[in-house]
Amino acid sequence: MNDIDTESLKGIANQLRILSIQATTAAGSGHPTSCCSAADLVAALFFGHMRFDPKNPHYYNNDRFILSKGHAAPLLYAAWAETGFIPEEKLATLRRFDSDLEGHPTPRLPFADVATGSLGQGLSVGVGMALCARLDQLDYRTYVLLGDGECSEGSVWEAASLAGLNQLNNLIAVVDINRLGQSDPTPLGHNLDAYKRRFESFGWRTEEIDGHDMDEIVEVLAAVGLGNQPLVVLAKTFKGAGISFIQDKEGWHGRALSKEEAERAIAELRPSARSGIGHPIAAPNQLPAPKNDPPAQYPAITYKLGDMVATREAFGNALLRIGGADNRVVALDGDTKNSTYSEKFLKKYPERFTECYIAEQNMVGVATGFAVRGKVPFASTFATFFTRAFDQIRVAGISRANVKLAGSHVGVSIGEDGPSQMGLEDIALMRAVAGSTVLYPSDAVSAEKLMDLMASHQGVCFLRTSRPKTPVIYSNEEAFPIGGAKVLRQTANDNITVVAAGVTLHEALKAADALKNEGIGITVIDAYSVKPLGKDVILAAAQKTNNVVLTVEDHYLEGGLGDAVAGELSAAGVRVHKVGVSDLPRSGKPEELLAHYGLDAQGIIRKVKAL
Amino acid sequence: MNDIDTESLKGIANQLRILSIQATTAAGSGHPTSCCSAADLVAALFFGHMRFDPKNPHYYNNDRFILSKGHAAPLLYAAWAETGFIPEEKLATLRRFDSDLEGHPTPRLPFADVATGSLGQGLSVGVGMALCARLDQLDYRTYVLLGDGECSEGSVWEAASLAGLNQLNNLIAVVDINRLGQSDPTPLGHNLDAYKRRFESFGWRTEEIDGHDMDEIVEVLAAVGLGNQPLVVLAKTFKGAGISFIQDKEGWHGRALSKEEAERAIAELRPSARSGIGHPIAAPNQLPAPKNDPPAQYPAITYKLGDMVATREAFGNALLRIGGADNRVVALDGDTKNSTYSEKFLKKYPERFTECYIAEQNMVGVATGFAVRGKVPFASTFATFFTRAFDQIRVAGISRANVKLAGSHVGVSIGEDGPSQMGLEDIALMRAVAGSTVLYPSDAVSAEKLMDLMASHQGVCFLRTSRPKTPVIYSNEEAFPIGGAKVLRQTANDNITVVAAGVTLHEALKAADALKNEGIGITVIDAYSVKPLGKDVILAAAQKTNNVVLTVEDHYLEGGLGDAVAGELSAAGVRVHKVGVSDLPRSGKPEELLAHYGLDAQGIIRKVKAL
Repeated sequence: MNDIDTESLKGIANQLRILSIQATTAAGSGHPTSCCSAADLVAALFFGHMRFDPKNPHYYNNDRFILSKGHAAPLLYAAWAETGFIPEEKLATLRRFDSDLEGHPTPRLPFADVATGSLGQGLSVGVGMALCARLDQLDYRTYVLLGDGECSEGSVWEAASLAGLNQLNNLIAVVDINRLGQSDPTPLGHNLDAYKRRFESFGWRTEEIDGHDMDEIVEVLAAVGLGNQPLVVLAKTFKGAGISFIQDKEGWHGRALSKEEAERAIAELRPSARSGIGHPIAAPNQLPAPKNDPPAQYPAITYKLGDMVATREAFGNALLRIGGADNRVVALDGDTKNSTYSEKFLKKYPERFTECYIAEQNMVGVATGFAVRGKVPFASTFATFFTRAFDQIRVAGISRANVKLAGSHVGVSIGEDGPSQMGLEDIALMRAVAGSTVLYPSDAVSAEKLMDLMASHQGVCFLRTSRPKTPVIYSNEEAFPIGGAKVLRQTANDNITVVAAGVTLHEALKAADALKNEGIGITVIDAYSVKPLGKDVILAAAQKTNNVVLTVEDHYLEGGLGDAVAGELSAAGVRVHKVGVSDLPRSGKPEELLAHYGLDAQGIIRKVKAL
Repeated sequence: MNDIDTESLKGIANQLRILSIQATTAAGSGHPTSCCSAADLVAALFFGHMRFDPKNPHYYNNDRFILSKGHAAPLLYAAWAETGFIPEEKLATLRRFDSDLEGHPTPRLPFADVATGSLGQGLSVGVGMALCARLDQLDYRTYVLLGDGECSEGSVWEAASLAGLNQLNNLIAVVDINRLGQSDPTPLGHNLDAYKRRFESFGWRTEEIDGHDMDEIVEVLAAVGLGNQPLVVLAKTFKGAGISFIQDKEGWHGRALSKEEAERAIAELRPSARSGIGHPIAAPNQLPAPKNDPPAQYPAITYKLGDMVATREAFGNALLRIGGADNRVVALDGDTKNSTYSEKFLKKYPERFTECYIAEQNMVGVATGFAVRGKVPFASTFATFFTRAFDQIRVAGISRANVKLAGSHVGVSIGEDGPSQMGLEDIALMRAVAGSTVLYPSDAVSAEKLMDLMASHQGVCFLRTSRPKTPVIYSNEEAFPIGGAKVLRQTANDNITVVAAGVTLHEALKAADALKNEGIGITVIDAYSVKPLGKDVILAAAQKTNNVVLTVEDHYLEGGLGDAVAGELSAAGVRVHKVGVSDLPRSGKPEELLAHYGLDAQGIIRKVKAL
């Protein structure tokens, strides 16, 4: 790396500054000063260090670059313009409705693997990619550019911890320490030693540099990959670097320059600016491509009707089964694998299992990293602990990432552990993710079949599983299409359609049998697909029961199955009555709690009679 | 502290172990081994160190104790039994539906300030309490007992960072490093030096001890409060300590002992056990009580009809206004104060403002800490960044904590910054919190009035504010009761009831005016109270428009205003049609995005005509 032309790189850095200023001034908004602080680092990475094919950003052995400080998006776009991948004039469309150059990067752009802009998430994704490179025996490296402000996010330290434990020397974090946050100076300012101590205590190799000294940048990057630790480059920079009247000044975050200010700034930068177009970029090594093809089908299952199997255990069985047929499947755990049964997969396929410890945010971020590298990651923990990672799940939705989540121990039916461990809001959360699929099996067969579909279906999918054992009610051949629902009881004279899922479905079936003996008919529907909802099936059944529906769910009344059914069917004139967890529950026996909230067969019978 | 009888404390520790084992064996579930590892630490804290009135756990100058590792609940209950506060025989009711001794602590018990059990949250609450002690000029100290497993949670490091920055020498973390997590050994095992380096890098004083050596424990606690740093006691312990056949063995997490195992264990512990009842406990100092009385009323507001004011700015105005009249009000920020306008409060009342930097989980935890000490904390950031803290908000709900959240920049109407910055799921999330209140003002007057109510109303409250300026449409005297709704347009011949809030309400009003010119009447309702919903007002209006309702919201279609209205009114036969953000949005001008999703006046007019 001794022959790198640092003068060229300095020139390209100023060109990136100019393009970032021009684009944000044209847009009338954006973060040009956050681009300027990192411009030297990005110029050195793209044009003097990283190995990638600039014509094919998705090439499997390209070095990866994640702009964790997503508000510096114009800098990223400028870099790709200077590689020649996008035309420079397109930068003027920044932040426009008709442009893919959004205010923060999203994977609408082929060079953005994931959406960034919700701070503190990029390093977790980088850990996933670095782990994936190892699994695939590829030598690409993953570079994550972080802002200093986002280092206050705990998710950064969750990621740092896992990277250190796994000795990911193919992962490089670069922290743009420009001293200024949005509304205030950052807590650590330019105290690089403080950052150094923190990263070192999490198992990282550290390098402190002047982030505007190209020789120092080039030198430190030349030593990437040495040793067995991840590397963090701590770069002292200035916000607005290169613009004399803005550099290192407060009050310039998230503010585009006026036309006059932009002209003045560009006049300062122009003399030393130099286009990167035509500048050589190091090519990636040629290595065998990873095998990321889905199998033709997954192995069959062999349950018997009446077998008592918890859906959480069926999830574990399915993970093992489809993992054996599908090399893309990887599993991630948050130290609950003996409760979620993901340990079945670990025992057989340890190389595809990542123990993330009790750090759910990072677990989801790492899963996203695997997903964007072609894997099908299943991350599992108690459903309610996915609330901890909800921002990461939200951003996985924006990234349209192929992330699979399985949440166990839902509802009051977990019993004695009490409300802090009960998943009572997970349907509400998971429904509110862009493009998500929410599945809620009631028996082992449907749980396994839905797992097959999750593995095949693109996008964020959530499987809601229960703690108690429930009987198998479906044959092994039954199909469970996403967006479907199953009518399990129906007669010509039914008075009401009961829609349930999970443990309440079994209670509804018991209620139907008991009511039948009293001469009262009810339709019972298994709403295993909550999003998309099996709307047509439910509507058709409802119309045969005088448009009266009763939903019964082991979930809070807000945002769950009942609201989903009401929200979809109310417009058609269906009257939806809801039974669910109506207030803060407490510890107790599962059957006591189900009875307390009217979720058991007796409660359903009472409600049906009242209606 | 030289006269502490360490032999007594050792005996009490074993008594706590015995009681923990008996209670969990009686319950048939629980975590006795996690109690045993921390028993010496808890015995020393309660009976040899902390200053508190055991007859009055809520006394304002008592030292505070937070059991962050909430699964060791039986140990906490045993300690309070040994102080004499609860009868020992009550411990046999552990985990029963008719008992307040839940599987994990909740504030149903007067000695549990907050619910714990979702790991990694206790230290943030402790930071809030320690800051509150300073504000109130009280000398109580806050002790947080953490497990080693939960130190993988990033939230712990967010809290550690803020404690270090604020030099909280009245905060003491005690980490029970028993080496074993739920499903595996912890990542750092018994490497106490690794913990030491991490905490030191975050600005803490550290002490490493043998957590089963009472002399060492007593000695290190005697030096609490020295210097100007928070102190962490890193205690090497063994899971199941004191039980020869279980101690330090894997496979014993979350498992009650059988009767026979319990008898064997107790036989080992009994000879050296000693009751704590009658043992002296240090009394707290007598200091003036904090002034936490609410004012008789808040100052009036003086907007003019038609004034253009963003509701986010009205939030900032309200915070300043009520903060001036109410000493209980404190404010917390996640480095967005210049966008949320909480900086107005900072400028006037810096001593009641905590800058939490970009660490939303900790911000909510700190707010919870203030809340349980009698303050009325308002934490604000962009609405979508509360997704980062959703688990903390969930637990604040379980704690019935008086936490106030204000989320700005909601919906596609923020425009160019793009989807990562848009609050599109916040209503769904906040509705799904136990006991929560969700408010969504449309103009400055309603925003201010709702802030008055939030400050007076107990429990988790969320205020949803918008970025664009909107006209004032209410007089300064208008009242906005929680659970109400306002009918803003209504004639005798209306065809449909349009329910809206925030920016869409103004579009609905424009639509009503335009439709009126065409001879089409619509009822327009401001649903400023989303939870509890102004159900009666909306139902009464709907019944006058042939039971047809159209909801229009700048939020995803799932779990938002539309689902709330459908979920509440569908049973009454109301047909609810929904317009909202139906897929993943992108950057663009606010008006383009509103038009794209049919949320503007033209879209509403089209939809009304189609219906």
